Amino acid sequence: MAKKKGKKRQTKKSTNSNKKRPIAHELAKKQREISVAEFFEKNRHLLGFDNPKKALLTTVKEAVDNALDACEEAKILPEINLQIVDLSSKPEVKKEVEEGQTVLVTEETEKPEDIKPKYEDRYRVIIEDNGPGIVKKQIPNIFAKLLYGSKFHTLKQNRGQQGIGISAAALYGQLTTGKPVRITSKISPKSPAHYYELKIDTQKNKPEIIKEKKVEWNKEHGTKIEIDLEGKYQSGGKSVDRYLKQTAIANPHVTIIYASPQAKQMVFPSAVKELPEESKEIKPHPLGVELGRMIKMLNITKARTVASFLHSDFSRVGSGTAKKICENASVPPKTKPKKATREMAERIVHGIKKTRIMNPPTNCISPIGAEALEKGLKKEIKAEFYAAVTRSPAVYRGNPFVIEAGVAYGGEQNPEGKSKVLRFANRVPLLYQPGGCAVTQSISETNWRSYGLSQSRGSLPQGPCTIVVHIASVWVPFTSESKEAIAHYPEIVKEIKLAVQECGRKLSSYVRKKKKIVAEKKKRDYIETYIPHIGDALKELLSLKVKDKKKVEKLLKKILEKKRGKLKNIKVHKADFDENLALEGDKKNARKKEKKEE
Amino acid sequence: MAKKKGKKRQTKKSTNSNKKRPIAHELAKKQREISVAEFFEKNRHLLGFDNPKKALLTTVKEAVDNALDACEEAKILPEINLQIVDLSSKPEVKKEVEEGQTVLVTEETEKPEDIKPKYEDRYRVIIEDNGPGIVKKQIPNIFAKLLYGSKFHTLKQNRGQQGIGISAAALYGQLTTGKPVRITSKISPKSPAHYYELKIDTQKNKPEIIKEKKVEWNKEHGTKIEIDLEGKYQSGGKSVDRYLKQTAIANPHVTIIYASPQAKQMVFPSAVKELPEESKEIKPHPLGVELGRMIKMLNITKARTVASFLHSDFSRVGSGTAKKICENASVPPKTKPKKATREMAERIVHGIKKTRIMNPPTNCISPIGAEALEKGLKKEIKAEFYAAVTRSPAVYRGNPFVIEAGVAYGGEQNPEGKSKVLRFANRVPLLYQPGGCAVTQSISETNWRSYGLSQSRGSLPQGPCTIVVHIASVWVPFTSESKEAIAHYPEIVKEIKLAVQECGRKLSSYVRKKKKIVAEKKKRDYIETYIPHIGDALKELLSLKVKDKKKVEKLLKKILEKKRGKLKNIKVHKADFDENLALEGDKKNARKKEKKEE
Repeated sequence: MAKKKGKKRQTKKSTNSNKKRPIAHELAKKQREISVAEFFEKNRHLLGFDNPKKALLTTVKEAVDNALDACEEAKILPEINLQIVDLSSKPEVKKEVEEGQTVLVTEETEKPEDIKPKYEDRYRVIIEDNGPGIVKKQIPNIFAKLLYGSKFHTLKQNRGQQGIGISAAALYGQLTTGKPVRITSKISPKSPAHYYELKIDTQKNKPEIIKEKKVEWNKEHGTKIEIDLEGKYQSGGKSVDRYLKQTAIANPHVTIIYASPQAKQMVFPSAVKELPEESKEIKPHPLGVELGRMIKMLNITKARTVASFLHSDFSRVGSGTAKKICENASVPPKTKPKKATREMAERIVHGIKKTRIMNPPTNCISPIGAEALEKGLKKEIKAEFYAAVTRSPAVYRGNPFVIEAGVAYGGEQNPEGKSKVLRFANRVPLLYQPGGCAVTQSISETNWRSYGLSQSRGSLPQGPCTIVVHIASVWVPFTSESKEAIAHYPEIVKEIKLAVQECGRKLSSYVRKKKKIVAEKKKRDYIETYIPHIGDALKELLSLKVKDKKKVEKLLKKILEKKRGKLKNIKVHKADFDENLALEGDKKNARKKEKKEE
Repeated sequence: MAKKKGKKRQTKKSTNSNKKRPIAHELAKKQREISVAEFFEKNRHLLGFDNPKKALLTTVKEAVDNALDACEEAKILPEINLQIVDLSSKPEVKKEVEEGQTVLVTEETEKPEDIKPKYEDRYRVIIEDNGPGIVKKQIPNIFAKLLYGSKFHTLKQNRGQQGIGISAAALYGQLTTGKPVRITSKISPKSPAHYYELKIDTQKNKPEIIKEKKVEWNKEHGTKIEIDLEGKYQSGGKSVDRYLKQTAIANPHVTIIYASPQAKQMVFPSAVKELPEESKEIKPHPLGVELGRMIKMLNITKARTVASFLHSDFSRVGSGTAKKICENASVPPKTKPKKATREMAERIVHGIKKTRIMNPPTNCISPIGAEALEKGLKKEIKAEFYAAVTRSPAVYRGNPFVIEAGVAYGGEQNPEGKSKVLRFANRVPLLYQPGGCAVTQSISETNWRSYGLSQSRGSLPQGPCTIVVHIASVWVPFTSESKEAIAHYPEIVKEIKLAVQECGRKLSSYVRKKKKIVAEKKKRDYIETYIPHIGDALKELLSLKVKDKKKVEKLLKKILEKKRGKLKNIKVHKADFDENLALEGDKKNARKKEKKEE
């Protein structure tokens, strides 16, 4: 009390004429906690919900990502059923649309039907998987709490990594339609399915259960999600269709059945019947651990000495390396981790830098594989030439990663304009923000002219070409929460360049061969054009019969071709090329020749 | 228990050969909450801490933003004292650096001094303001808890808006150096100053108080922050120096005293001695409120009827408009807000769209002002011509905003290469991500050739020119948490274009005038060249004396100049231009002429 009086007495002393002092008390009243849900509700563009079109895509993407991760974690070949229903101007009471197991009861207490506003740009996304399902207790948190999940705290290759995505979609749906997200999940044939209607209490970032019950579901296990949202559906460009197509390229083991808002059904069948190799969880590599994290790890470790802590809590640290680190750090190996000071932790971090430690293990990463990537490309893009490579693993900030790249050239692709770039991160297609992405940058900075494509400086190459890049890592560094572009880490940029260069070289030998074959064909055409004339001349000179003339012509042709074949016996697979690839060129030439002869 | 048995019995039924079923229980164990501090610790590039150089700048920026906001809120002319100390390879025990009031005791229990690792790229940022101070209770939350602050929940023009910035800087410091952030704050001459050493418990996103005590501080009120961090100091480009210079341009009322790591002192004195007009907090505009938020607002309002809710909780809704909205929404005006259904809320949102409502009030925005902006430019950039405009307020998504633009042309600026662009948001300079910013886009899309500058299509204009754009709004839509670029809202892009076009027109009349004056001078030079010859000719013809010849020449000159003056009496300030501005051009022409005559 005495204090308060004191404060009131001193008024006019300060430079400004504030009557009530100290103003800090006024300001303090407004200082309060901001829930992460409120934060992202206001900043939803950070999560990929900038506009209705993108919002629809992001919702589908987050749901598909989660479904695939769950299936793979449980070693189930994923089968996804996606349905997007156009709700625009359909009065809800009629319920023409299937809604979970039960009829969704909207709180209808009002009267006249005709007043009901027509919903514009309103869609329902229904996605069903055959995954392991979610235990009852966790359903509300997973779908109606931001920053909740299993992937953030593990170093493992996953599509999701933040625990934001699907609840953000639910939040967006709630914000734009006021409707709860609806979940049905079943974890085994003998368990009942659980149905939930959930909203997010944004002020607390906590799930609010609108409805829950057991339901019958004629399925062994799986999860079904329904979200109503304001969206815009378009095909082409950055559309759901395109996203699914690209997902099929990067995930040849996945089956997707998709019913579009126009009720058109598309099926993307799996190209391989095996799951990709399981990616393993790893411990952090000592070189990627910063001081603050080291201090935290020392505090929470179960190890009894610093040496055993280094050995047990990091990857690639054997007991020998652990001792060496302690030595380099001048820290007694038997120090108790909890008693290590900040100074000591700092010396350990420096000691690690001085010690030779093996690169992180790479069995934790499951790339698509060059073969599967090529298969995927062949399935989805009609081209003449395909090539794909998988680089060996590399490391950035202690995180192992693998770059894969593929090229599809020619065929039905547009010969005009810039080549297409498909970007993937942990098998997820990236459709937005190509300009800010390390992939685009690396491709633009590669010299494609030396591989036979035209290119203006610092731009994407020109021509009928699709370039695919995939980064697989235990932690993909995205430039924003919406996971649309990859950050420009120098190690990553370098690896991408090396990968596309490798593809480029393969492509260039094809392009060169193709050019040669065309030239070759031209020569043969010439030969074929002149041989009859030579035949005629010989016939006259030697007075051959017509039959003999034909024979001579045949022989001549054979001899000439043999000779050329010997001279250029590099071309072993020439025939293949002729038949399969250069066919187009040949046909053209043939047609041209015919025209000329006419 | 019975359930569990049941689950164990059914093993081989499903398509896959998982022995332990249901796997969902396994997965559930790993599903848990992620604290927002952990999230941003792992994703620190989202907050502007990508690399050491940027981290140092971001730390300074967040601290300066907070200091300025606090001073203005308390109506105090801001005086900021910034010191960046290079700690590299200085052993800490020596403590050559002032550290708060007291000597910071590091937990030193180890022995040999020489083992201590040399710190590379380590800096201490010390920033002191004369603001209102922070009440004791709030200090830990404000500096050591992410998403805590006073600005998120208000619609008011502030530099900060998220409650992340300064705690993120503290978090980064802690992560890279293991050191706590150190705060001293005093709220009035009669109160004691409070000293805190704080760490962030990242797992809980809660402050951890390392030390707290009352200290003597010879200052009426204010706050002092000390953060140790890994950083990199560079001048030029995107440096602290550049940031401070630009801050001085956009905040002519601020005094900044800055001691750089090389112990060079720079002072940016205030150019005006008045605070900018206080920006006011406003209520949301009904047109910017989405359904989800409407439902929430209906739930928490204190109003008793929907009509009074619309009137009291929104801006620009009088009781007449409120009734009109209810009518358009077919909602009885006397409905109790808490009893309004989702359907009703939806109808209200649609009703709002059908109702004519005034644009949001704009007294909530405090632009820099064209005059002050020009003053700021003149202070910091040596040029020949300056112009600045302040547009009238506009609205995006219900948020009022104002665009200001300025141009500085010629002078000591580099005549080669692209023009410089300075971007500001709520008086804060934006130094990173120009490519992703609506400002850069808008300027590039403006046709500068019609204003006399050269420009290649879709690029920034060329020439000795600096273009400044400032957006002031109650909520600036940034593209990321690090607040580096402005999102591409069409309304904002349009306003920016209009503002720079206005500047462009002013600039063009100057550039044209300059060109004309140069041409004019050329003509006069010709006249002056020929008049003596005419004089000679007349002298011969009329047999004049030398004295008369001179007189005639003078008269001739006068007559000719008068005539031309009359013809072109638009040029009132010609003389000014001649002397001050076109001087360079004139001199050049004169020199050229001389050479020619030689």
